[in-house]
This record gives sequence, structure tokens and C-alpha cells, in this order.
Amino acid sequence: MNRPSMMNRPSMNRPIANRPRILTGDRATGPLHLGHLAGSLANRVRLQHEYDTLILIADVQALTTHFERPEGIAAGVRALALDYLAAGIDPEVATIVVQSLVPAIAELTVFFSMLVTVNALRHNPTIKTEAAEHGYSDLTYGFLGYPVSQAADIAFCRAELVPVGEDQLPHIELARKVIRRFNELYPGPEGPALIEPRGLLGSVPRLVGLDGRAKMSKSLGNSIDLADPPEVIREKVGRAVTDPSRARATDPGHPEVCAVFAYRRAFQPADALNDAEGACRGGRVGCVECKRAMAELLIERLAPSRERRAYYQAKPRLITDILMAGTARARRLGDETMAAVRRAMSLDHFPLEGAPPTLL
Amino acid sequence: MNRPSMMNRPSMNRPIANRPRILTGDRATGPLHLGHLAGSLANRVRLQHEYDTLILIADVQALTTHFERPEGIAAGVRALALDYLAAGIDPEVATIVVQSLVPAIAELTVFFSMLVTVNALRHNPTIKTEAAEHGYSDLTYGFLGYPVSQAADIAFCRAELVPVGEDQLPHIELARKVIRRFNELYPGPEGPALIEPRGLLGSVPRLVGLDGRAKMSKSLGNSIDLADPPEVIREKVGRAVTDPSRARATDPGHPEVCAVFAYRRAFQPADALNDAEGACRGGRVGCVECKRAMAELLIERLAPSRERRAYYQAKPRLITDILMAGTARARRLGDETMAAVRRAMSLDHFPLEGAPPTLL
Repeated sequence: MNRPSMMNRPSMNRPIANRPRILTGDRATGPLHLGHLAGSLANRVRLQHEYDTLILIADVQALTTHFERPEGIAAGVRALALDYLAAGIDPEVATIVVQSLVPAIAELTVFFSMLVTVNALRHNPTIKTEAAEHGYSDLTYGFLGYPVSQAADIAFCRAELVPVGEDQLPHIELARKVIRRFNELYPGPEGPALIEPRGLLGSVPRLVGLDGRAKMSKSLGNSIDLADPPEVIREKVGRAVTDPSRARATDPGHPEVCAVFAYRRAFQPADALNDAEGACRGGRVGCVECKRAMAELLIERLAPSRERRAYYQAKPRLITDILMAGTARARRLGDETMAAVRRAMSLDHFPLEGAPPTLL
Repeated sequence: MNRPSMMNRPSMNRPIANRPRILTGDRATGPLHLGHLAGSLANRVRLQHEYDTLILIADVQALTTHFERPEGIAAGVRALALDYLAAGIDPEVATIVVQSLVPAIAELTVFFSMLVTVNALRHNPTIKTEAAEHGYSDLTYGFLGYPVSQAADIAFCRAELVPVGEDQLPHIELARKVIRRFNELYPGPEGPALIEPRGLLGSVPRLVGLDGRAKMSKSLGNSIDLADPPEVIREKVGRAVTDPSRARATDPGHPEVCAVFAYRRAFQPADALNDAEGACRGGRVGCVECKRAMAELLIERLAPSRERRAYYQAKPRLITDILMAGTARARRLGDETMAAVRRAMSLDHFPLEGAPPTLL
């Protein structure tokens, strides 16, 4: 099998490493689904050609909720890498990084932990919401501090931009605050050691689940996964929740309450979408027919992804090489950042290389 | 100047690295004083010949209280190294380590932070006491978590023993708990990745300050520093608080309320101590005379230390070499530990060496 075609690459006028740097990523807790594709992944595939894109497979952050079963995280790391590659992330353009293998992130987390108060974290709305979602009453120290770690994720590679939806801006705000405080406290001999990031606002639609619930989620069992083969997609779309008031195919439908229509909106061009909406509202196309068409549309949309998935799946060593190369680059970036951080903090006591031998 | 003589080295039957390992250390926040010598340092000088001794210069932990002025910490690191070397820590036997340059400590801190609840830390008596001492109402995340970092200090080098006084046993208890929990959760393919440490109980007398306050402390301005030259020692002992009820030299004294007698108890052999006590209680030796004798005794006790201090002070590059060699060894030990930790947690996704080149 030949290497599958990537998306058309625009001409690269400047080396990737000199472009503005973006940091994105996902927790390594399960396979990606259509919600991720619509919400962030398709956007990243576009952005990788304009920016120096680092994509973090967040296995340490996954531990904040999954520390009792890390085996799943290990599998999740490779599954996530495969999802990225299948979706069109090009390892010759973007850098895929395994978080736990970048010590600079842990080192910055420790330094940043002196710059954030416990109360600020306890009153953080995201922490509150997520603790409630997980049913935690007694937070672990690591869970409470995950926004601090996220600031370190962004800072270690001196990312300038973090693609986010509007609802995620508070996340970025804490990272900006911590990094600004760091640069103020430790101005450094050669200017700021760290870069205060900005959120790169994009429309990040949240995709409804097959069951009509507000959010598609693997753990809710209402997702179409990017790895789902055509027959599974057909079956899942077939049981998706549509307009419950529509008893017969000739009844006028209400696309605004229909999960299938939400998927059309996410993945169909505007003109085709208008046609489908008119046919539904006019009672000219029934739900069964609409679902069949929608399933085929999705299957077609995911065809290049399936091709790339099959290619990489047959080459597990290639996936390892991609992760190794990406992580090695991230470690180099982290080393550079930590050297600047140590100079700024006056903690560059001596060079790390060239130590004299000991007797031990 | 010749290399100063070290204490007599007992014959070494086994290589140092194969002996049981001890972890000790100090925060790099100021020079050491007689209280440190009596409380821990003299003991470490003895222990270094029986154990594989790692001494941590805790500059990161110093940040928990001094993050706003790290320049002082940088100076503190070298001052502490000089204090150790002067006191008789032998760099050919013991390993002196700069904490901030060992990434494994930060990495373990992050992993351990998933295993400790916020409430357990908030109710930790030491955290409570120290927060009160510093007058903190709003703790930083890093200050709250410093017992977690301490567990990482012990774990990174798989120390078996931590020399402590009875009052510090609760510190060790938390480290033991975290490490035990880690080993239970992540049993690992080759047995426990980490070693549950034990406290090595020694009598760790707390030395009274020159002003008679309970604890000698640089910040209280009531200390005799190890670096103090003879004339400063004479001056300081001269103004030490003695028995306030003793108006004349011939009045019977009460050694139990006298700072000078506390120093005698810490640094004089039992028979000489009995003589001095008798002379004081019997009103045969007055405070002025007693202080003069005590000052000379201290000056003599610190003579080898002064000799070594002068030697190392004239060789700043040697101090750097000692710190580099010790830290390099600690980094190697940390790398070994992290490799075992990653295997145990199933997070050994791929080797860190030998990454293929990237295009970036």
C-alpha cells in the first residue's frame, strides 16, 4: 500500500519551526469521535499548514481521573495517535507529543504551583464543574492543580496560540495569568523566558449525541467514533434520535430537534444542507431515507480517513517512530525553555553537561 | 594549601553505591548554624561513612516560601554546599545534589499528586503549623503540596532511610503512604518500582537561640552560624542569655535556663559538662568566665571546619565541580527510577533514545 495522500499542502514560504506555534491536544482516555472532528480535529488539520502545530497526547492529565487504571491510558496514547494520523494530521508538518515523556512540563508545573493560590483553583469554575461531573467530593491534589499543568503544557514549548472555543477561554485566561506572573517575577537577562499565549478563537460546534443528549461522548455510549467502519456508522445513524413528533415520513419534520440534522449541519455544505432541510420540513423525505443518505455521506466524508487508518494500522512501528520523533522534538524545545527559565530565575547554577566523574 | 584532612574513614568493605541509601537535605534559604550542626549535620558526617548518603540542596522547596526572590536562593545553594563541605561532608563519599536540576523529582511530584487528596494536605499538622508561622491565610498550590514534593525527594533516588528526629516522623509517614499507594496501584513487571522509606531515628536536639528563645534561627537573629569567625563567636556567646536570677558570679546558677549551658550540653563530653554544671550551681564560676571558656571551646570545635571552609572558599570552581558531579549522579539515579516508574505505570510507550529525525 502506498503512503496515502495528505491534504493539499499550500506552498511553504517559511520553515515550519519559524511559524507562530500552536499547542493543542487531547486526554488519552478514549478514541476520538465525530464530535472531536467537528469541534477541533478538522480545524487542526487545516491549521497545521499555517502554524507550527504541536499536538499533545495528554497521558499525565488523563491520570488525574484515571490514575487507578493506567493500562487504558497506554492503549489510549496509540489510539489517539492513530486517530490523528487518520484524520489527516501530517507527521511531516505537525508534531505529535506524548506528554509524560516531556520532563519540562512537570518542572514548569512545579514552578507554576508557587504562583497560583489554592483558593483560586478551588473557585475555578471549570474545576468545580468537572469535579461535580466526576462526582468527586474529595479532590486529589493533582486534579485540583490540572489548570496549573495545562499552563505548563502551553508554556514548555512557548506556544503563542491555543485554538479554543469561546467556552474554553477561561482555561487560557489562567494560563495567561500564570505565565504573565512568571515573566513579571523573573524578568530574566534576555527578556521574558516564556510566551503569554492567546486563544485562537474558532467556531467549535458541540455535536449532539446519537441519543439527542447535548454532547457526543464515548462514555455516554452515544458517539460515532472516527474508527467506526461503514456498517457500524450505518447502524448507529439508523438508531439516532430524530424528531419525535414525526410519526410518518410525510409529516413535516423539525430539523432543529434532530440529531441526524445536527450531523448534516456539521459535515454538509450549505446548499446541500438547505435542500435537506426543505425536504424534511416539507415532509418530502422521511427519517429512514434521510438517515440512510446521511450515513452514506458520513462514510464518504470519512473515506480518506479510513484509507489513512488502514495504512498506519498496518505499520505500528511507523506510529512509534512518529511519536518518538515528535516527542524528541518536544523534549528539545522543553530543554531550551527550561534553560531560559533557569536563567530568568537565577537557578542556572551550573551547566548540566560535562560533569566531572565521581568516585561512586 | 593542601586538601584538608577528612574525618577518619572506616575501612570500606562494600562500594558506597551498594550500601543502604540515605536522603537528607536542607532548604537553600540561608547559612547553617550551630542548631543545624547539633541537630543533623554532625550526624550526617558520621552516617556518610556507613550509608550511601544523598544530600539535597532544596532550592525548589525554598521557592515555596521565597518564590519572589530567587536570587537569594541561588546564593543559598553555594553557601549551603560550602557549609556542608566545611562541616566535613566528604564529596568523595557523599553525593551533594541540587534539587532543581533533577527533573525526576518534578515528574514524581506530578504522579504523586494524583495519590493524595487536598483534604489530607489541608489537615496535615505540619502544613498548618508552617502556614501559621509564615502568616499565610491563602496558601499557594505549591506550598500546600510540599509534602508531596518531599515524598518525591525521597522516592527519586529510592532512599531507604531518612534521618529524622521524633517530631519529624509525621513527614516520613506521608511519604511512606504515598509510595506504598504507588507500589500497590502500579505493581510493575519486576516488583515495586519505588522503595518505601523508613525514618532513621536519631536524637536530634533542638538548640536554643542566643536570646533564650526555643529555637536557634537565622531569621530570628539569634544564631551562631557555622561560618562565623572566632571574633564573632566570642561576641555572640558574650551576649547570650544566661540565668537571669544570677546577679553576681558567686550566686548559685541554674544551667537548665541558660543558653550557654545548652550549647555546652550539645558540644561538650559528659565529664567536662558535669564539671561545668557543678561550677555553675556552686557559684564557683561566673557567667562571664563561663561564656569566655565556652566561646573558646566552640572556636576549637569549629577549627577543622574553618580550615576546610578556607580551603573550599579559595576554590569556587571545585565547589561547582562537586555540585555538578553530585547532581549528575542524582540525575542518573532519577532516570533509572523513572524508567522503572514508567514500566510499572504502563507509560513506557517507547524508548527515549534513538528517535528518528524529523523534517522540522
